[in-house]
Amino acid sequence: MTAPERPAASETGDPLLLTPGPLTTSKRVKEVMLHDWGSRDAAFLQVNAEVLKRVRDIVSGGEAFVTVPMQGSGTFAVEAMLLINGAYGHRGKRICEIADRKVVTYETPEDTPPDLAEVERLLKATPEITHVFAVHCETTSGILNPIADIAALAKQYDRRLLIDAMSAFGALPLDAREIVFDAVAASSNKCIEGVPGLGFVVCRKTALEKAASNATTLVLDLHDQWRNFEKTGQYRFTPPIQVIVSFHQALEEFMAEGGAAGRGARYGENCRVLAG
Amino acid sequence: MTAPERPAASETGDPLLLTPGPLTTSKRVKEVMLHDWGSRDAAFLQVNAEVLKRVRDIVSGGEAFVTVPMQGSGTFAVEAMLLINGAYGHRGKRICEIADRKVVTYETPEDTPPDLAEVERLLKATPEITHVFAVHCETTSGILNPIADIAALAKQYDRRLLIDAMSAFGALPLDAREIVFDAVAASSNKCIEGVPGLGFVVCRKTALEKAASNATTLVLDLHDQWRNFEKTGQYRFTPPIQVIVSFHQALEEFMAEGGAAGRGARYGENCRVLAG
Repeated sequence: MTAPERPAASETGDPLLLTPGPLTTSKRVKEVMLHDWGSRDAAFLQVNAEVLKRVRDIVSGGEAFVTVPMQGSGTFAVEAMLLINGAYGHRGKRICEIADRKVVTYETPEDTPPDLAEVERLLKATPEITHVFAVHCETTSGILNPIADIAALAKQYDRRLLIDAMSAFGALPLDAREIVFDAVAASSNKCIEGVPGLGFVVCRKTALEKAASNATTLVLDLHDQWRNFEKTGQYRFTPPIQVIVSFHQALEEFMAEGGAAGRGARYGENCRVLAG
Repeated sequence: MTAPERPAASETGDPLLLTPGPLTTSKRVKEVMLHDWGSRDAAFLQVNAEVLKRVRDIVSGGEAFVTVPMQGSGTFAVEAMLLINGAYGHRGKRICEIADRKVVTYETPEDTPPDLAEVERLLKATPEITHVFAVHCETTSGILNPIADIAALAKQYDRRLLIDAMSAFGALPLDAREIVFDAVAASSNKCIEGVPGLGFVVCRKTALEKAASNATTLVLDLHDQWRNFEKTGQYRFTPPIQVIVSFHQALEEFMAEGGAAGRGARYGENCRVLAG
């Protein structure tokens, strides 16, 4: 009898990371960081532009959407998304309270998805709610929220939807042609399997246009970050270059695996093996 | 007659970057990024703790100071420093205005350092100024501001000093035992010669303690970032791990070159060769 098949160790011999992110990245994703680039070099800016377009394509955003990157981590992108808008999660609530934005919270136990009838009741009863903020998949508990249903309710009651898709983006389907949202935030180091250091928000352009001067910080101002890209093609402040070039490679490998469908299928199979 | 000596190409064959940052980093600084680490792994947290201590040691901060890292870039660290305080540069002024903090500006032409008599007049005439914000070396123009004299005036008039030392930190002397300041901000990708993606602020602990809840954002809250390190030794939000491990290696090489004295001497010699 032969020994049971075991998952291969990581290509670099490091322990396999079974965390929801940062996670084990491919050898090639790391190897492309072995170079230096100027942050205003045409070659780097081309790589960056491709990254932003590919990220938008993951949610089938099309020309109505634009990806605005945000140095830092996923939470930097989420805060940036909330600061140019109003909003409703835990970290999201704290961000809004610190920034003096009004918030209505609907909270369920950590292992319970929201009751859609209660969401509807809240939207009906509170016309002051302009934006709904929802987490696609809760990274800590793994709870998958019914994002399509929440989006349908937001649409029905004419409220704008902001999505924190951190540990879902690129593995669970999210199609802008089917699910109406104004913005979705995620990061380089989860299902796209890049190294950590970059967040991004895929934004509906018409919503972004209305958000000028809304942010209460300079560095987290998504509108200003976008306008500057439109004008110069460059970052306002030094970007994490190696992280972005590496993210570009991760996106190549993501596409080679069949995008969100392929990656989601592999994660599903991993889950079956681990749970089985 | 032999050909004149030319600087060596970068070790990876990439063009040499003569920008003030991002700049050409050593091969080894990049090679240490060829691994994956969990953001809560003891080994990574040990590397991070050493980085924070070494950065503090560069300004001889001692136990009265603590280094608080900030994901993003140098400007993220500067904004974080200003948000927990009051403040006075261009980007600094904009940050304060966006955050609704009162600002008094003293501006000189780009190639002219400040007139110290005018700084003194402003401090005397405006008792409402609680904090003075000064840039050590202007990255764009290269102007070196008389930071010791500004610090002496701030001390004389009992105001707190915040320094943006971005392109000076690690190459020009700045000693907390001689120059009184509350905080100094810089980044991984300038004179320490790491890759971009991390900012940091070396803070006087007594000043940091007074700054609870001052920040108008969650992610940029230096006090909260510090408190969380004190409690858990961990980042609140995913850190740019490879960037930090790489910064650790850059600090090794910085120390091997003799710290700020050695590095400043090499930059001085480079300047002489380029200008000569």
